[in-house]
Amino acid sequence: MKTRIEADSMGDLAVPVNAYYGVQSFRARKNFNITGRYLNPMFVSNLIRIKKAAAITNQAAGTLDTVRARAIQAACDEILDGKLIKEFIVDSIQGGAGTSANMNANEVIANRAIELLGGRKGDYSLVHPNDHVNMAQSTNDVIPSAGKLTVLELLTLLLKELKRLQSTLSDKSKEFDHILKIGRTQLQDAVPMRLGQSFSAYAAVIARDIKRLERAKEDMLSLNMGATAIGTGINASPYYRMHIVTVINEVCGTNCEQSEDLFDATQNLDGFVHISAMLKVCVVNLSKICNDLRLLSAGPRAGFYEINLPAMQNGSSIMPGKVNPVIPEVVNQVAFEVIGNDMTITMAAEAGQLELNAFEPVLFYNLFESLESLKGAVITLRDNCVSGITANEERCQELLNKSVGISTALCPFIGYQKAAELAKKSLATGKNLKELVLEEKLLTKEQLDVILNPYTMTEPSKFVGKMMVNS
Amino acid sequence: MKTRIEADSMGDLAVPVNAYYGVQSFRARKNFNITGRYLNPMFVSNLIRIKKAAAITNQAAGTLDTVRARAIQAACDEILDGKLIKEFIVDSIQGGAGTSANMNANEVIANRAIELLGGRKGDYSLVHPNDHVNMAQSTNDVIPSAGKLTVLELLTLLLKELKRLQSTLSDKSKEFDHILKIGRTQLQDAVPMRLGQSFSAYAAVIARDIKRLERAKEDMLSLNMGATAIGTGINASPYYRMHIVTVINEVCGTNCEQSEDLFDATQNLDGFVHISAMLKVCVVNLSKICNDLRLLSAGPRAGFYEINLPAMQNGSSIMPGKVNPVIPEVVNQVAFEVIGNDMTITMAAEAGQLELNAFEPVLFYNLFESLESLKGAVITLRDNCVSGITANEERCQELLNKSVGISTALCPFIGYQKAAELAKKSLATGKNLKELVLEEKLLTKEQLDVILNPYTMTEPSKFVGKMMVNS
Amino acid sequence: MKTRIEADSMGDLAVPVNAYYGVQSFRARKNFNITGRYLNPMFVSNLIRIKKAAAITNQAAGTLDTVRARAIQAACDEILDGKLIKEFIVDSIQGGAGTSANMNANEVIANRAIELLGGRKGDYSLVHPNDHVNMAQSTNDVIPSAGKLTVLELLTLLLKELKRLQSTLSDKSKEFDHILKIGRTQLQDAVPMRLGQSFSAYAAVIARDIKRLERAKEDMLSLNMGATAIGTGINASPYYRMHIVTVINEVCGTNCEQSEDLFDATQNLDGFVHISAMLKVCVVNLSKICNDLRLLSAGPRAGFYEINLPAMQNGSSIMPGKVNPVIPEVVNQVAFEVIGNDMTITMAAEAGQLELNAFEPVLFYNLFESLESLKGAVITLRDNCVSGITANEERCQELLNKSVGISTALCPFIGYQKAAELAKKSLATGKNLKELVLEEKLLTKEQLDVILNPYTMTEPSKFVGKMMVNS
Amino acid sequence: MKTRIEADSMGDLAVPVNAYYGVQSFRARKNFNITGRYLNPMFVSNLIRIKKAAAITNQAAGTLDTVRARAIQAACDEILDGKLIKEFIVDSIQGGAGTSANMNANEVIANRAIELLGGRKGDYSLVHPNDHVNMAQSTNDVIPSAGKLTVLELLTLLLKELKRLQSTLSDKSKEFDHILKIGRTQLQDAVPMRLGQSFSAYAAVIARDIKRLERAKEDMLSLNMGATAIGTGINASPYYRMHIVTVINEVCGTNCEQSEDLFDATQNLDGFVHISAMLKVCVVNLSKICNDLRLLSAGPRAGFYEINLPAMQNGSSIMPGKVNPVIPEVVNQVAFEVIGNDMTITMAAEAGQLELNAFEPVLFYNLFESLESLKGAVITLRDNCVSGITANEERCQELLNKSVGISTALCPFIGYQKAAELAKKSLATGKNLKELVLEEKLLTKEQLDVILNPYTMTEPSKFVGKMMVNS
Repeated sequence: MKTRIEADSMGDLAVPVNAYYGVQSFRARKNFNITGRYLNPMFVSNLIRIKKAAAITNQAAGTLDTVRARAIQAACDEILDGKLIKEFIVDSIQGGAGTSANMNANEVIANRAIELLGGRKGDYSLVHPNDHVNMAQSTNDVIPSAGKLTVLELLTLLLKELKRLQSTLSDKSKEFDHILKIGRTQLQDAVPMRLGQSFSAYAAVIARDIKRLERAKEDMLSLNMGATAIGTGINASPYYRMHIVTVINEVCGTNCEQSEDLFDATQNLDGFVHISAMLKVCVVNLSKICNDLRLLSAGPRAGFYEINLPAMQNGSSIMPGKVNPVIPEVVNQVAFEVIGNDMTITMAAEAGQLELNAFEPVLFYNLFESLESLKGAVITLRDNCVSGITANEERCQELLNKSVGISTALCPFIGYQKAAELAKKSLATGKNLKELVLEEKLLTKEQLDVILNPYTMTEPSKFVGKMMVNS
Repeated sequence: MKTRIEADSMGDLAVPVNAYYGVQSFRARKNFNITGRYLNPMFVSNLIRIKKAAAITNQAAGTLDTVRARAIQAACDEILDGKLIKEFIVDSIQGGAGTSANMNANEVIANRAIELLGGRKGDYSLVHPNDHVNMAQSTNDVIPSAGKLTVLELLTLLLKELKRLQSTLSDKSKEFDHILKIGRTQLQDAVPMRLGQSFSAYAAVIARDIKRLERAKEDMLSLNMGATAIGTGINASPYYRMHIVTVINEVCGTNCEQSEDLFDATQNLDGFVHISAMLKVCVVNLSKICNDLRLLSAGPRAGFYEINLPAMQNGSSIMPGKVNPVIPEVVNQVAFEVIGNDMTITMAAEAGQLELNAFEPVLFYNLFESLESLKGAVITLRDNCVSGITANEERCQELLNKSVGISTALCPFIGYQKAAELAKKSLATGKNLKELVLEEKLLTKEQLDVILNPYTMTEPSKFVGKMMVNS
Repeated sequence: MKTRIEADSMGDLAVPVNAYYGVQSFRARKNFNITGRYLNPMFVSNLIRIKKAAAITNQAAGTLDTVRARAIQAACDEILDGKLIKEFIVDSIQGGAGTSANMNANEVIANRAIELLGGRKGDYSLVHPNDHVNMAQSTNDVIPSAGKLTVLELLTLLLKELKRLQSTLSDKSKEFDHILKIGRTQLQDAVPMRLGQSFSAYAAVIARDIKRLERAKEDMLSLNMGATAIGTGINASPYYRMHIVTVINEVCGTNCEQSEDLFDATQNLDGFVHISAMLKVCVVNLSKICNDLRLLSAGPRAGFYEINLPAMQNGSSIMPGKVNPVIPEVVNQVAFEVIGNDMTITMAAEAGQLELNAFEPVLFYNLFESLESLKGAVITLRDNCVSGITANEERCQELLNKSVGISTALCPFIGYQKAAELAKKSLATGKNLKELVLEEKLLTKEQLDVILNPYTMTEPSKFVGKMMVNS
Repeated sequence: MKTRIEADSMGDLAVPVNAYYGVQSFRARKNFNITGRYLNPMFVSNLIRIKKAAAITNQAAGTLDTVRARAIQAACDEILDGKLIKEFIVDSIQGGAGTSANMNANEVIANRAIELLGGRKGDYSLVHPNDHVNMAQSTNDVIPSAGKLTVLELLTLLLKELKRLQSTLSDKSKEFDHILKIGRTQLQDAVPMRLGQSFSAYAAVIARDIKRLERAKEDMLSLNMGATAIGTGINASPYYRMHIVTVINEVCGTNCEQSEDLFDATQNLDGFVHISAMLKVCVVNLSKICNDLRLLSAGPRAGFYEINLPAMQNGSSIMPGKVNPVIPEVVNQVAFEVIGNDMTITMAAEAGQLELNAFEPVLFYNLFESLESLKGAVITLRDNCVSGITANEERCQELLNKSVGISTALCPFIGYQKAAELAKKSLATGKNLKELVLEEKLLTKEQLDVILNPYTMTEPSKFVGKMMVNS
């Protein structure tokens, strides 16, 4: 492989002659051979957008000449078009707070800009990665800012899918509103309810998650651009500092603001922990819902089997005809993944020291994965599972009829102790509860018809209320 | 020990004759010998307040007679006055979604009410724990509601302390505003800043935590009272269902509302996970601050030693005169505790099934501990540490003078590469950076006086900006 | 309250005149008002045993005079008899690596020894907490050593209970060996098995946990006594250093050894993390078993209901006759607790710096709780649940008969695809699988009698094997 | 794109005509679009090795004809040679306990074997994915077995690197054995030690990690091959069941055994949790070491700066000449990653139900990543950091000389209280401790020369011991 020699403070190093990346990227690649995964492409794009915005702003500030500024912007546009993506060679998990990612971008842009200006790669007198591309910037402001812009994009996509799911759950709650079933607490038969009420509860909790994520998103709108190294803004011109976020908004189509305290915004990653924490709350809820779906569809012969999940694929390599709840299962797994990622993110944020948190790379790696995997999970949950769920109405009815949970409704009339006694008797003898009450002449048949009507029990304030007061 | 015989569905059991608790509490005590810690007293109080509100509401609804209703309220008032607290004998971690805690309250109230009515403990025909004290309620609504009321109280206390801390950090940032020091990223010398800027960043992040916790608090204002067993509200009268939350607000001085979807509110614990998650974000920030305080005060002779923490106690049993950063250390530990508790809370919430989450006891145990321990930590951090921090101004100056971090300020004028070269040379030779620049005639003395002035570097947009553009 | 004045490096402080603790304990109490829980009594005892052993050894070394040495030992013996326990006033979570706990012990022993020598509390010229009681010791060796001795005790108790549980599970596997049931994978009906095989699997995994915990225990046998401050053993005499662990073994009845590298042993807490991690593995298994028990006993009318858990208490305050799986539920909760504690322990261990880990207090607080709560959980699981489980044999048979899982056994003879087709047909038409095979003349009745015999399917290598080869 | 029609129980589906994968893989790809990462290639290889071993064994058992058996083996060999890797199209995180991964392997092998036999892809009458390739197997035994074989390989590689690191740390401890420095506890100056003692402690703790991982590895040697669906071994011939593990050992070069209880081994994933837990303990130690390296190298002018880490790359995009501890930083990040992964693994293992744990895919995804990332981190830590560390001997000496930590050594001679007083005085006045002792005539110059000699303090039992007893 042909090489060219580049130099940095460590000394000379041969890099592939055709590479747009340079010596600093190349060192980083050798230093960090960790995950085998490159930077998230969306993150790279946002980093490039920031570089473009910086060139525009520095040009306007008069600190960067027009020729270089234009070349840098043109190079950025090419990268944003998807070219040169293979030039981003540094590992997602890297030491150094993202300096390697930042320098990788600076070098690729510089070398492409050099070419556009007719120069040869590596001739940094034309366009210098640090002096020109990175002008008025530091890893310490561009990396967290690119991270926030990326989270904003990913979160927007996720929220769209969560809303679709929420809406489908809500539709199902209407579809199943008439289906009576036994409710269960602690997996034991409890009192009657309607299947629609289950799905309405699912829709309600997801709606809350959406609201929480929307709010957490606000933390992403505060960028520390202009902070440069530690928050003082050293080496950034007043013009740049005042305008950079506005230009970023123009380039990215966002509505971010500059952080009020740039020291705070440079050293603290709590906004990301907030996002991850809200994702965690969300997956706790999704996992619970999926556990329920798996329980309710257990069977087909030897389980609850109150609902059917759509059959998406053969369930077993050995057991013919077996169909498994594979979609909820993958959601459960993504939930565990997001919860584990949250732990990593928590530790990374806690480990910040003084003016910087050096552990952003692992934080972003995990947060981006959480957002993307969760989006995939929500899509498949909605499209391949929830939307196709059907109810086994007869089975629901059968289980409800057999249960003694309806004895609860007797308490206000015959007392907890008597009701408990009759429930026990019914379970032991197999005799129907109503029969037993009539035998003991505790209530009349007419009263029982109202009190023990499972449907009224699912919304008792409408039906039994008056009776209770008069009893 | 003298005993009386009580009975429940399991059969007869002898309980101590003087006990206000009854058979169900007693069984629970024997079943759950886990932590050796009883229920949180504040939680007990809120449970009792709910019982009192229920008696008031049931009386108004006409489902509970006045004599019993008054006796129940009187019994509740006595318990709220701190009497009978030793009658609450069930373990904090218990099976059964809190039924044991609920029944413990029901039995103690019933037995005390019976006494007030002139009866003998255990004669539940007078006041029955289930039929009268627990009327229109279920474990499944009173326990999460008592939990929310308790979190509200504890969180209010915590927020007050966080605000005091935030304010003190802010004061310190003003006190230290004039003290120049070297900033550090990745523990390596970076560029100049002012000590006040450190504390201003600390104040800023805590302000954000306060805001997040205030918002999360809203989740606690939604009570599922009236849901009874699973959300249908079975056995609660329409009047009760409509008024119970209002009466609770009167008894507790709160402004809660009834949850819109009572199924959702009965089965999902996401509101608590939200609170815990925000506590986690907060301790991540507190732990980072405390790590910084420990770093900056490292010494006295062989560390950074830029600040002094107040000496609170001898640091060592063997090393005389040693003083350690014990207050930040305890805050770090509470941070680890809160993060671990958050994991437990997450798993408990995820494990809910169908119409109920049976794992509330362990969730509350952890959440209450997080809130209380964190409050203690914040108090001691403010009172015994932050408020007494002093700066070692000379030391700050000395370290700043020695550092070559100021070379950064040269970049816009002589380029990154040249600046790097000079920084390296300065480190190797011990020669002062200004000298080296002058030797090479890169800039004039007048220019350097502005550019390399550490104070201007801490707010460069005020000072160096104009120069940059003209350079 | 009457006070006496004591002094330390911070200055004078009034302590209650009758207190055996002194100025340093008193300061600590005020500095650390965190959990409201005092030191674990077993930990205090082990700390005292170490103090006693140190006095014996220092006396033998000739560095402590006989009079003081005897007084110190006598004071230790009194504390070990349970006296003076209320003098241990410092919070479990405290800053300073346990210095406060250590000094609390030193002061209580010193003051009691002073009394025994006829002196007045606080007259430390007679017996000095640091010079005499703490002679040749440092917080940095006595605290981790006391922690290890405590874990050894608690772990021994836990292992005893795990063995009882394992043995009971094993007994149950024999008791249920004849009961045929349908196996389930992913909650869907799979192939036949015997109920005893379920319990045998439970017994097997607990046996593995026991083995792992036994091995992890070895890490606790290595004490850093003699390390004093950081591992050099400064201020300990050669005699003491050589003999202290032997004397501790005599006092405690243990078989510990001195750590080979005392620096390592003083700064690293990995042995404790190992113990906690193995507890975590154990609770993962216990929680899975308990989830199974709750699933299998779901019902009584509308769930799997293949087994009965013993009814231990009323399940509901509102639903009469309801019995819940409260014992497995409490075990699940303890599992979540232990997993959360493990996270705290992990973070505390990771946070150690240089020659010491200052975060031992929170680590011990969590580890002791894990060990004690888990012991309680295992006891109640064995005594109040597993030992009384009964099988619903008819229900097992009924569910097995209805299932089409047996179609799997047809694959080797008619192929996966054909078997899948028949299973689907059987589910749709309700027709029995055997019938369908005969209809299509795929196998003879004689063959089917062997192949589709559920019992033989539970141990097929015994029965069907030969047939397969010949087919 | 040209397609062929394949069918499964769900119906017909067009798959790309040239694809070696079939309908089931294709459905899975569409169902699970989660991480965008395919199966770990090493895991695929082990799955293929198991398939090969199964074909050999079934052939020997007489249940698979020679022609098909040979074709299957030949197809497996091609895949193991690296061909067809792009045919493995299912996502790493997938629902269904790995059935999709298993069927992907079955289909690719079948189609390639069909080709080798002269048939056309999709003509499963020649070689059927389920009936022939998957013969006598189930997802439920091949997937966990392939997982264990993969962990064995990855762990062996990791252990090799840990041993190299341990050895280098040990070398460094000798190299630095003569360098005196101040020890620090709680970041405060403590007593003298030698730099070699720091590295010796690091080597010691890593040696312990190696030992723990070696032991945990044993859990991976137990395979549940022969269990098929749930442990009964349904559809496996007795010959196969007896010989399959032996053949796997031949194919893989391992020394595995068949699990004693195949139900246990099929439903429990505790062995993997054990491995992950030991990785967690290991990264706790590595992270602590890396934190120390970052602390000790903090500077160059305003930190401890007792050691130099090799400069591996420019530290900053803005601050010229800055060199950061990027290698330890990346190790810290991998530590956080492994700890987060451990949480995911824990939750996945806990979520198993009845006869199977359906959450293996996410468990493997995380465990393989932990093993691989950690290996990368250990390599770079050893090669690019530890091996090149140098000591700043003069700086160490300078800090030691300034410190008053040596006052500790006076305690046995003048008492803790007097020593504390002098230490305080020395700090306040700047006077040297020895001077102060002589001034007060507490000890002679000759005594002080021995007692306050920092070198003897680092191994006092050799030097000062005798003096102490005689004092």
